[in-house]
Amino acid sequence: MPRTKQGAARPPDNAGPAQNAHRRSICPVACTLDLLGDKWTLLVVRDLMSGKSHFKEFLASPEKIATNILAERLARLAANGLVERYPSSDIAGREAYRLTEKGRSLRGLMAQIKAWGLDHIDGTEARMATDKEN
Amino acid sequence: MPRTKQGAARPPDNAGPAQNAHRRSICPVACTLDLLGDKWTLLVVRDLMSGKSHFKEFLASPEKIATNILAERLARLAANGLVERYPSSDIAGREAYRLTEKGRSLRGLMAQIKAWGLDHIDGTEARMATDKEN
Repeated sequence: MPRTKQGAARPPDNAGPAQNAHRRSICPVACTLDLLGDKWTLLVVRDLMSGKSHFKEFLASPEKIATNILAERLARLAANGLVERYPSSDIAGREAYRLTEKGRSLRGLMAQIKAWGLDHIDGTEARMATDKEN
Repeated sequence: MPRTKQGAARPPDNAGPAQNAHRRSICPVACTLDLLGDKWTLLVVRDLMSGKSHFKEFLASPEKIATNILAERLARLAANGLVERYPSSDIAGREAYRLTEKGRSLRGLMAQIKAWGLDHIDGTEARMATDKEN
């Protein structure tokens, strides 16, 4: 699905579903890690759950994700049906991002990660809501 | 704590706690991903939960982890208090690995990852128990 260029940073369109191409085993843990097992993907999901939708909003998070990493992760999440693009109502011609139902299904996992971090890593604080409904 | 050389593959001893050195923010999700956010660490934890304890057992898992990656991950998990070494009862002079209480506290998170994979990634099957008690 070709798209016209608009906006500054654009996710690459060649990031196909990773889960089948590089599957290491049929283990659900391994396959989930093939998709989400890195330091950035779930931070983008966290930001989406907290209500962020625009590229610049993700870039503004305290972890300072690099533009190319953010673009690649959003494209991969979209290619795997976890994120969808939609026309931004704020800026004409600009796209925004939101979780699909499949993406929202990561709420339980996100809550476990957050709880484990708060319980077991000193100095962590839950300042961000991980869901709009929070 | 210096240790004498024994056995074939040895984890490097210079893998200190990563969680403080490279902390990206105080977010519990980010800090947990600093520690566990990669494609291999939680597979080693999965294997430990399923009862594996020897270096060669981890290498035999279907994902075929590389020796150096396994050694680094075990050392990092040990440095962060999730894994402890103990003398193997099977082979004299050989060490084995087991989860500490902190490591076992990852059970809930592991169960969420497994359940999410089974529910959302086609072709995954839960063949391995993720806990000795299973």
